[in-house]
Amino acid sequence: MMTIPTNGILVSAPGKVILFGEHAVVHQKYAVAASLGLRTHLYMEKTQDGICTLELSDVGVSRQWSLASFPWDLAQDEQEGDHPIKDMTPELKTRLQELAGNCTSDAQEQALMAFFYLVMTLASPLQERTGFKIGTRSFLPVGAGLGSSASYSVVLATSLLIAFDYIPVDFASSPEKASHFETINRYAFKAEQVIHGNPSGVDNAVAAFGGAKSFLKGKGFSTLEGFQSLRLLLTNTKVPRSTNALVAGVSERKNKYPEVIDPILTAIDGVSLRCKDAFLKHQNGTMDSNALIMELEDLVDINHCLLYALGVSHPSLEKIRRITGDYGLASKLTGAGGGGCAVTIIRDDVDQDTIANVMRLLENEGFDCYQTSVGGAGVGAVTLDAAEDLEWMNAVAMDSLEKKFI
Amino acid sequence: MMTIPTNGILVSAPGKVILFGEHAVVHQKYAVAASLGLRTHLYMEKTQDGICTLELSDVGVSRQWSLASFPWDLAQDEQEGDHPIKDMTPELKTRLQELAGNCTSDAQEQALMAFFYLVMTLASPLQERTGFKIGTRSFLPVGAGLGSSASYSVVLATSLLIAFDYIPVDFASSPEKASHFETINRYAFKAEQVIHGNPSGVDNAVAAFGGAKSFLKGKGFSTLEGFQSLRLLLTNTKVPRSTNALVAGVSERKNKYPEVIDPILTAIDGVSLRCKDAFLKHQNGTMDSNALIMELEDLVDINHCLLYALGVSHPSLEKIRRITGDYGLASKLTGAGGGGCAVTIIRDDVDQDTIANVMRLLENEGFDCYQTSVGGAGVGAVTLDAAEDLEWMNAVAMDSLEKKFI
Repeated sequence: MMTIPTNGILVSAPGKVILFGEHAVVHQKYAVAASLGLRTHLYMEKTQDGICTLELSDVGVSRQWSLASFPWDLAQDEQEGDHPIKDMTPELKTRLQELAGNCTSDAQEQALMAFFYLVMTLASPLQERTGFKIGTRSFLPVGAGLGSSASYSVVLATSLLIAFDYIPVDFASSPEKASHFETINRYAFKAEQVIHGNPSGVDNAVAAFGGAKSFLKGKGFSTLEGFQSLRLLLTNTKVPRSTNALVAGVSERKNKYPEVIDPILTAIDGVSLRCKDAFLKHQNGTMDSNALIMELEDLVDINHCLLYALGVSHPSLEKIRRITGDYGLASKLTGAGGGGCAVTIIRDDVDQDTIANVMRLLENEGFDCYQTSVGGAGVGAVTLDAAEDLEWMNAVAMDSLEKKFI
Repeated sequence: MMTIPTNGILVSAPGKVILFGEHAVVHQKYAVAASLGLRTHLYMEKTQDGICTLELSDVGVSRQWSLASFPWDLAQDEQEGDHPIKDMTPELKTRLQELAGNCTSDAQEQALMAFFYLVMTLASPLQERTGFKIGTRSFLPVGAGLGSSASYSVVLATSLLIAFDYIPVDFASSPEKASHFETINRYAFKAEQVIHGNPSGVDNAVAAFGGAKSFLKGKGFSTLEGFQSLRLLLTNTKVPRSTNALVAGVSERKNKYPEVIDPILTAIDGVSLRCKDAFLKHQNGTMDSNALIMELEDLVDINHCLLYALGVSHPSLEKIRRITGDYGLASKLTGAGGGGCAVTIIRDDVDQDTIANVMRLLENEGFDCYQTSVGGAGVGAVTLDAAEDLEWMNAVAMDSLEKKFI
């Protein structure tokens, strides 16, 4: 237990799920991604000792560095002061890897490299007395296609933008909030580039802005107008799979059976576009909420079957469809498939007993099952001035604080 | 037990399965139907007493009539003698219903009406001393979309064409065999019209000619060149369903989501065309047997998933896919779906123990499961001169005699 410093803040950002169009998006078709109610939380307090403390409990990082030990001699343009680093040059990369020291996993190294890079991009070597403690806790399973790294990148970028006075803690209610969100998203994308090399930018945009985005390879992404938060079950089969192998398998099937697979990809494109249209109609008042959710259930069902036809389902995913289908609920795989996660739409008329029954049945199969939402708010931050008491990165406390962000 | 009369003959014709394209065929897409190794057998002996005896054990018919009691006064053109009846006029229908008397099921009445109509079309009132005993036994479940009525129509037409000397018993090895098969198919189609009103003609063509046919609504059907007999498991879920409701459901989904469903139907069209191409390539020597069957397995798998996307699968059908999939076997629903039957391709490398295990698991679920073949011979006939002994319509004997026909 510790006394909350008055400058402590909590930052939280959602994960993402692909609602429609996974795999098809690789072949120039529309996809729809939305924010996921499972979020990454970050606690930060500023210090005046020039020490950076980082506690990333999910990847097992607990470290300290003095800000002065960062490789500032590589700053490309000292005149800019507050933007000393623009590119991750090979030399910078090598020096940051030295700063990271021994890592026990790729996830550790990637998280540290993104952190170092953001600090060096945002801090100035002149701010030598500035220090901070940062701790993160995520409810997003890592490597499950749920945008855990983007969610981490967004909370990290947000906290450092606040620490180095680029944006206020209450950025989300500021008159310049649009610009602040854009700034957060831009830096989160830099972090994602450090982690992934060539990310699409969708994951960090969803984690930053919330709601839903449609996207088309090479054409960027756009906000899905009228998207509203929906109840969702997210089930993680925990069946490991190789995204690359699954993507390659679809390409192989497409090359072998173009007259069959090409129209299937066109059908999936149609699913994504219908989703977009449905929310627009709902916003325009030409489709009521009941019709909207029934249409989404149809689209979820059809999209899953089409993914099944592409060869990327798995017995565990069909089991989820069977269990949820027995209760009249529509499910689909989300992401690469071949295991991984599934989403189940929960209509407004589904009561909590039913949800509890379904979750129990899914958990009995060894799956992790989360009752959450999709399409909710993006990144948020609050100061902890009013908070009575907070254990450092206490997961339960973080969980209870989640409601402040969404 | 009875002594086999020297004029006794056995006739046998296959059922049919839709291999690819069900439902899509309603919307002007190609489908592929093939003969099914489950067959209808008919025993016939001619008599000189002017009495027709009919034993249809599968629909519970056991009747006798004198040929003179048929409504010959309605013969449309007595000059033709051997073709006294051309059309099923309302008056003829009424008179034949009187001749049928009380029937306990639609299947009984339809079978009798088809029989009467064929007799009146083929017999002459001048042949008053001609009589025959006919008995049938089918291994095809009725109303399961497996062409049981077409198979019955073909054996009935064949036996009556033989009885009234239109074709020889050894029609299949005669120099005029092509013409004989056409004759059988033409009369079987008449019987199918009596039974169904407006049949497509595919079922009787497959039962008469065997092999496989591709068909396109309004454009007729054509033989699938190079089609070869394949091993097959046929599983009957025995889940009752309404074909009309399922067809209407697909049309409704197509009307609601044309941008999604139209390309799915195009994909199914592609599946049927790929099947046709694959057998052609195999015949031309550009695809070996192993590649052929692997391609068929892919197409079976994809077609099923696309039918699932159309909303016509059923938990029982997914269970069959799961059980067979566990043994590396590909299955799809066949026919209307929503229950009904599924087909499972059995590759050459699958041993009998595996097949027995899969069948046991399917039967444990309450399904009827038949190890059979697809694409085999059409109608055949043999005399029983050489047969040692035969119980009248003994099912086991008929079964053991089946190998003579295929």
